[in-house]
Amino acid sequence: MTRISSVRINGGERVPFANHTAYCVGTGRVSLALHEEYQKQLRRVQELCHFRYIRGHGLFSDQLGIYQERKTPDGQVRVEYCFTYLDRVVDAWQNCGLRPFLELGFMPKALASGTQTIFYWNGHVTPPKDMKAWTDLVQATLRHLCERYGIEEVSTWPCEIWNEPNLKGFWENADKEKYLELYRATALAVKEAVPQMRVGGPAICGGEGSQEWIRDFLTFCRDNRLPVDFVSRHAYMGQTPEHRGRYLYHRMCRVEDTVEEMRVSRSIIDSFPEYKDLPMYITEFNTSYNPFCPIHDTNLNAAYCAGLLSQLGDVADGYSYWTFGDVFEEQGIPPRPFHGGFGMVAEGAVEKPSVWAFSYFSRLRGETVYRDERALLTRTENGGFEGIFWNICQEEAENALISLDLPADGQQYVLLSETVDEAHGNVLKAWHDLGEPASLSAQEQAFLQSAAASLCRTETVQAENGRLKLSVTLSPNAVSYCRLVPVKAETDEGYDYDWYETKKERK
Amino acid sequence: MTRISSVRINGGERVPFANHTAYCVGTGRVSLALHEEYQKQLRRVQELCHFRYIRGHGLFSDQLGIYQERKTPDGQVRVEYCFTYLDRVVDAWQNCGLRPFLELGFMPKALASGTQTIFYWNGHVTPPKDMKAWTDLVQATLRHLCERYGIEEVSTWPCEIWNEPNLKGFWENADKEKYLELYRATALAVKEAVPQMRVGGPAICGGEGSQEWIRDFLTFCRDNRLPVDFVSRHAYMGQTPEHRGRYLYHRMCRVEDTVEEMRVSRSIIDSFPEYKDLPMYITEFNTSYNPFCPIHDTNLNAAYCAGLLSQLGDVADGYSYWTFGDVFEEQGIPPRPFHGGFGMVAEGAVEKPSVWAFSYFSRLRGETVYRDERALLTRTENGGFEGIFWNICQEEAENALISLDLPADGQQYVLLSETVDEAHGNVLKAWHDLGEPASLSAQEQAFLQSAAASLCRTETVQAENGRLKLSVTLSPNAVSYCRLVPVKAETDEGYDYDWYETKKERK
Amino acid sequence: MTRISSVRINGGERVPFANHTAYCVGTGRVSLALHEEYQKQLRRVQELCHFRYIRGHGLFSDQLGIYQERKTPDGQVRVEYCFTYLDRVVDAWQNCGLRPFLELGFMPKALASGTQTIFYWNGHVTPPKDMKAWTDLVQATLRHLCERYGIEEVSTWPCEIWNEPNLKGFWENADKEKYLELYRATALAVKEAVPQMRVGGPAICGGEGSQEWIRDFLTFCRDNRLPVDFVSRHAYMGQTPEHRGRYLYHRMCRVEDTVEEMRVSRSIIDSFPEYKDLPMYITEFNTSYNPFCPIHDTNLNAAYCAGLLSQLGDVADGYSYWTFGDVFEEQGIPPRPFHGGFGMVAEGAVEKPSVWAFSYFSRLRGETVYRDERALLTRTENGGFEGIFWNICQEEAENALISLDLPADGQQYVLLSETVDEAHGNVLKAWHDLGEPASLSAQEQAFLQSAAASLCRTETVQAENGRLKLSVTLSPNAVSYCRLVPVKAETDEGYDYDWYETKKERK
Amino acid sequence: MTRISSVRINGGERVPFANHTAYCVGTGRVSLALHEEYQKQLRRVQELCHFRYIRGHGLFSDQLGIYQERKTPDGQVRVEYCFTYLDRVVDAWQNCGLRPFLELGFMPKALASGTQTIFYWNGHVTPPKDMKAWTDLVQATLRHLCERYGIEEVSTWPCEIWNEPNLKGFWENADKEKYLELYRATALAVKEAVPQMRVGGPAICGGEGSQEWIRDFLTFCRDNRLPVDFVSRHAYMGQTPEHRGRYLYHRMCRVEDTVEEMRVSRSIIDSFPEYKDLPMYITEFNTSYNPFCPIHDTNLNAAYCAGLLSQLGDVADGYSYWTFGDVFEEQGIPPRPFHGGFGMVAEGAVEKPSVWAFSYFSRLRGETVYRDERALLTRTENGGFEGIFWNICQEEAENALISLDLPADGQQYVLLSETVDEAHGNVLKAWHDLGEPASLSAQEQAFLQSAAASLCRTETVQAENGRLKLSVTLSPNAVSYCRLVPVKAETDEGYDYDWYETKKERK
Repeated sequence: MTRISSVRINGGERVPFANHTAYCVGTGRVSLALHEEYQKQLRRVQELCHFRYIRGHGLFSDQLGIYQERKTPDGQVRVEYCFTYLDRVVDAWQNCGLRPFLELGFMPKALASGTQTIFYWNGHVTPPKDMKAWTDLVQATLRHLCERYGIEEVSTWPCEIWNEPNLKGFWENADKEKYLELYRATALAVKEAVPQMRVGGPAICGGEGSQEWIRDFLTFCRDNRLPVDFVSRHAYMGQTPEHRGRYLYHRMCRVEDTVEEMRVSRSIIDSFPEYKDLPMYITEFNTSYNPFCPIHDTNLNAAYCAGLLSQLGDVADGYSYWTFGDVFEEQGIPPRPFHGGFGMVAEGAVEKPSVWAFSYFSRLRGETVYRDERALLTRTENGGFEGIFWNICQEEAENALISLDLPADGQQYVLLSETVDEAHGNVLKAWHDLGEPASLSAQEQAFLQSAAASLCRTETVQAENGRLKLSVTLSPNAVSYCRLVPVKAETDEGYDYDWYETKKERK
Repeated sequence: MTRISSVRINGGERVPFANHTAYCVGTGRVSLALHEEYQKQLRRVQELCHFRYIRGHGLFSDQLGIYQERKTPDGQVRVEYCFTYLDRVVDAWQNCGLRPFLELGFMPKALASGTQTIFYWNGHVTPPKDMKAWTDLVQATLRHLCERYGIEEVSTWPCEIWNEPNLKGFWENADKEKYLELYRATALAVKEAVPQMRVGGPAICGGEGSQEWIRDFLTFCRDNRLPVDFVSRHAYMGQTPEHRGRYLYHRMCRVEDTVEEMRVSRSIIDSFPEYKDLPMYITEFNTSYNPFCPIHDTNLNAAYCAGLLSQLGDVADGYSYWTFGDVFEEQGIPPRPFHGGFGMVAEGAVEKPSVWAFSYFSRLRGETVYRDERALLTRTENGGFEGIFWNICQEEAENALISLDLPADGQQYVLLSETVDEAHGNVLKAWHDLGEPASLSAQEQAFLQSAAASLCRTETVQAENGRLKLSVTLSPNAVSYCRLVPVKAETDEGYDYDWYETKKERK
Repeated sequence: MTRISSVRINGGERVPFANHTAYCVGTGRVSLALHEEYQKQLRRVQELCHFRYIRGHGLFSDQLGIYQERKTPDGQVRVEYCFTYLDRVVDAWQNCGLRPFLELGFMPKALASGTQTIFYWNGHVTPPKDMKAWTDLVQATLRHLCERYGIEEVSTWPCEIWNEPNLKGFWENADKEKYLELYRATALAVKEAVPQMRVGGPAICGGEGSQEWIRDFLTFCRDNRLPVDFVSRHAYMGQTPEHRGRYLYHRMCRVEDTVEEMRVSRSIIDSFPEYKDLPMYITEFNTSYNPFCPIHDTNLNAAYCAGLLSQLGDVADGYSYWTFGDVFEEQGIPPRPFHGGFGMVAEGAVEKPSVWAFSYFSRLRGETVYRDERALLTRTENGGFEGIFWNICQEEAENALISLDLPADGQQYVLLSETVDEAHGNVLKAWHDLGEPASLSAQEQAFLQSAAASLCRTETVQAENGRLKLSVTLSPNAVSYCRLVPVKAETDEGYDYDWYETKKERK
Repeated sequence: MTRISSVRINGGERVPFANHTAYCVGTGRVSLALHEEYQKQLRRVQELCHFRYIRGHGLFSDQLGIYQERKTPDGQVRVEYCFTYLDRVVDAWQNCGLRPFLELGFMPKALASGTQTIFYWNGHVTPPKDMKAWTDLVQATLRHLCERYGIEEVSTWPCEIWNEPNLKGFWENADKEKYLELYRATALAVKEAVPQMRVGGPAICGGEGSQEWIRDFLTFCRDNRLPVDFVSRHAYMGQTPEHRGRYLYHRMCRVEDTVEEMRVSRSIIDSFPEYKDLPMYITEFNTSYNPFCPIHDTNLNAAYCAGLLSQLGDVADGYSYWTFGDVFEEQGIPPRPFHGGFGMVAEGAVEKPSVWAFSYFSRLRGETVYRDERALLTRTENGGFEGIFWNICQEEAENALISLDLPADGQQYVLLSETVDEAHGNVLKAWHDLGEPASLSAQEQAFLQSAAASLCRTETVQAENGRLKLSVTLSPNAVSYCRLVPVKAETDEGYDYDWYETKKERK
């Protein structure tokens, strides 16, 4: 079966579409940025996607090691801040063209009021046992960053207070009052240290009661006249999962459902006169929320991402895919190169299908002239078009056929297309066919690298009566990026491309 | 229409096949190795093909500038040798893993007895006006190379005397007697300077009377007891051409015809008792002999190359494709990125289809178990198979379907295939569709790079009753490299590759 | 003997000094930019000096190969422009952060009205046999550049018409009338093609009658209402030379003499009311004008360069050292790594002393507070100082001792100095001591690279009574770059730099 | 005061000297090899020193994460081995030309019988709670390595059992019996998994009772017929220290004392007839044993290293400097770029003086003809000499003057010297003068890089009467590497190096 649709552009259409694809991307624990493999993966992602900000957990966790206590000979404890690793991390990001979207958390063990931790790497999630010590840490860190990177630069880095405090795993008892107290102290400390920095929260994830958190957070800020420059929340599409071994499987809700959930948050914000139009950032989003969910490595995930990227700009001012790469340790060190990790790229910086969706959206130029649930089309300055097309097939495997009827200024065009689908760029299948090896040989790695490429093709398209007619066929879960560029052929005298073609009779 | 063939391997078959693919490759004028673009193209070719020797013209031409005359204040002429550029060239080759296959020619202008030149870059093709000055130059050069690179290393570099002296363009009047005198003096000079070096000739191209040259050359060597360590000649497949603008078009003879022509040379050599089994090198080969023949950029050329590589080892001990890259100036500077140049890669080191044929043959491992005019199959140590398949379609566009029936030791295999055909890796079509631009933008260059990739795929193959049955489909002018590797799946507990697949009903 | 001087800065001093060091640099024949070694040398120079423009000969010479004539089958000649190499050259420069300072010349052989050539590489120096064909070539080239690099970018590239037409070697008969005609046609053609481009001339070298050329050129432009956006000329310091073998030796005039000669040109320009304050560029300068003059490799040359860089800004709006590197062929291919070539760096991108002078001047920041014939001092924003010191010793080897007495805002400073003198960074001596090898082994190359380093040192300086007193000692021909930076020590608790020092009694 | 000595070589001398400098080097916790900064530092060290093996702690610690336990849904614990990080670490080493010298330890937390840990990073140092689980881990790891890297390769990697079990910090209670049991089980397990691997121990550090450990260890092996392929121990020179803040200061014993301590171990081994001449490896050595001892960054340390490298080969078959770089966490993350860390290079791969000592010794070629406490001299094949000279000044700052009187085959020589002393390559002083900044700006980093260079100079030396006389002056704590190479000058006709020199009258 094939889904058939047709798109006719007369000229002059303008369709609203806000493209924040390149605004921000997520990362595993920030201290992992010390790893060479992390940097390799990030470089590749940045070549393809050109993200501007990067956000991750663990800025104040012990692996990054900023907060240090040292016993002096007289038995006293001396607090010291060690910025050695922080500098390396920020330098590494800058080398990849990225700025930090700072998430202020988790708690250094020595400052934690309790023992609760999260993740394989033991992020402490209890409130500070001494709020002053915490805000001192925050301010010392920001001041150090200003000294090293310049206050003008650092002032452009947003500060989000904590992560998902509405979950008991991330914030002891999901204690809202304590979070608001943390926010109050921290936001004020940030502004004192770097007045131009933007602060925000509450960085909640979805689920029961989550929208109330936003309302309560803003009420608290308003009533206490606290600084708040943006509201942040997360968006995941996974439904009740099934567990097998270390893996988790679940179906996804529809893109529309996710967008609708975000729209509710947006309208809560706008219901405050003081906060109407305050920026809302989705500081994490993905299909599944689990780093061992095989969907992340599939073409289905890429198609979903395309769907999300085509709509999230309607409800948010930024959104950050969780996460760019597979150097990630929350549920343990990934024991195999493909394991359902969040990454857009896998071990060795091998592209997974989803990275192409982000790459296509980040490259999109021009005025948007059409959008539906499988297509987005822009008109470019030079009289051409760009389009992204996708075909989400979670339930049933259907092809999609999209007929395009477009106005043409010129006569000859080239259609340049890049496509990733289950037959092209499906590196997971290649790894599966290789026997799902846990440890890749250099030869296997090289083959996977080749197998991960998208399909790049060209086609000559001739206008007829000032119209261009062409059709795009999408196999299940395909994502395709097309550019239609006017061509003025510069054929050299005597050059005949078809000479060796026309001798053939095609049969 | 489809050509259908089937291959059945019982086990134990052994088919003769000598694979000298990686022995040597040709290059434009050696001084072009100074160019950054040349080195970039060569690096890419070497990543794919791992050639061991490189051979080109112009070692003694003025662009490389070894031979220099300088007037002293008292009006005398002082002969000097300048090895500055030679050192850079040889260093560049070594950095790419290559050794020189030295071609001793052409004549420095100051040593030439006449004014005749060849090529845009004016290679002098007249005999030396002073044989002693010539052999001094040869010896000084070899001695310098020994000093810089070590005599053991330099002793492994073959020395071929001149190029195509049986053509009037390359050697004044195609004067055989003068060539034999040149050979005598030069070969003796080489052996005197570096006794272990191998010398040979006569480096002829084909055509009327060419086989006689070989006979006369060997007769001369025998009668004069001259050193001769190998016989060299060239092989081109182009028939009478058609000219249009700067371009030349012609049909190719069959692979078999070329092989047969070489076999005649081989039998002439073997007819001398003294020279039976003396190595014969095809120091140049290609389809067309013209650097503005569009065939070189096509998939048809790749298929022809595969055909040649499957058979040339039957008749020669080495063969050198003319040439690795498109930095080449014989008929002028290439004015456009695709222009029918000899190169395996084009401007920007973009792969043309032919480079894949060389890459596939250079990678082939194992014992040969089957060969026909479209297929070559080897059995590898690990119980798998490798195969190269090609489908030359000069006249008619036919698909080819090859059924393979192979013995299986194991149960599960993966078929890894890499294919270049008119729909994949056909970078010429992409450039054509772009309007054949003479000057590529960075974006166009990047797109062509992507469009030049071969198609890499995997497939799981299950043995049945100890046999593997699979079929390879080749579209016209396709070349495909397949590896069939036994697989022992290492699936992790709970990992289900098909979970997101099986939810779909394929329609 | 020691030259002693003292410098006292009270604070508030401002001394005029225009620093155009980084404006432009010269290059050998532009087609040499195709060479990998050229690009390597240029990258190194740019790391050190950050030049913005690059200027060289041979844009229209046959090695770059823009102008091509092709015979068609019907015997007609077809003019074609080939931009393949031009694009590579400009791309290479852009990759090094450079823009072309275009010099329009020499003549393609096919367009030359005569046979006179210059240089080993045969640059044609006769007027065009067809002015229209010449201006067509100029315009086609500029239009191509605009298409490839954008008209806004190309509009920032100055266009200088021809090179040293007042020398018979560079322009047939040094025919002024013919030059002015060339200028008229070319300047108008440039402006027609790219209206915002700046054009200028007459690019003369010094010598008898040269100043008259400037006057006559401007008179011609004024009288004919021709566009003229800048005046250009050259400056070399070499006096009557002595020849030995391929080498040339001569003494240099004084820096002041060179500056005075330039000042005369400046005043001629300013004597035209229409051209008062018109930019004057010294599009070539150096000590010796000969590429086989050993001075270029010496510390003496570096000291001279420092002297020139400290004064040329008084009389010119830009000046371009001839040339950045030793990939250069005017008098033949350099047969040995050190040969008195113009380059700031030698084979293998090894730094010669002079490159440090350019590097130091290009890095200099701050307000100039002092200048004399051996010293230049600036005060920086942070309350520190930067200085360059040099000690030209052509006749006698004297040390120079410069005492500095400076105002101090702070208490502790660090003096960071970089020095190149006959004992440090004197790579020529190292090569000489190695026996002046013509062909360097990898080990020799590596040693020379190390021996070419400048001496980098630090010293702690304490202010006393708000004053800093320190002295700089310069051995003969030394050039030194000093930064005096206020220091706020951040010593860690318990860290004692001197612990292992103070145990020693210095004897 | 100056220490004066003279060395006369007649010719024919041969002095015993075993140079194992390049055999092995130490590293911080092996999982730190994941860090980009670690790899950068290691690459630089390897460029200079070309070590062959690398040895460090923590192969089985949780940061490398090989041993994993996972709870299954039915509540059982599943043991899994995760080689993801191990593969990356070994790949990184191989990319730097290194093989692992495996140290089997410490204990995964889940396998530890107790809770005692060592270091900031919590290495578990209690015996396995289940010896079978431990040997399973060892064998699984070795088998995985064989599968990935080939059994032939892995068989060349030595296996040392645990680290410093004679210290309570490293092995609970320093329980010798338990260590011997661990050795028995582990050594047998290793040999079962990879029969050709060499195993050894007891990896003790010095101190009271340490020599007894060696005797007891060998007695145990002999009595139990256990495999033992080498004996290992450590060597540190630090005497009773003084603590200040996080830093530790102490004086060093003499080189001779350290050598003597090693000689005792050697003689214990040789006292066993079964083990006479069994290889003894010093698997760690350094001056101070503390990673916050400022000596490591000094020239004094370099001079000590030279002294040790000149003598350790007399008593050991290999020795491994602890450690190559400053990415190191045993006492916490280094909070400042210079902090007395063990590394031969500092943050940013800046060379500390000691790396030059290792580089010089690793480069030394030829037959040893002389050795004393400040000098080592070899004669090379080409008739030249190489020498290393050092001047340890712990107590008093004295210069050393060494007069050399050597036989000369030729006439002219070049002396190439590289020197690091308190005025050259003393990067610690530069950092100190900069104010000891905790966080380096890019400009400071670059300056330190320059300031870290050794002084490279040349000098022409003429033989007189078949003898070469020269003297080497060493300032306090200098280390100097000299090569004396015969020179046959190749001066070009007319080239006069002195032309610009002789015009000067030196005053």
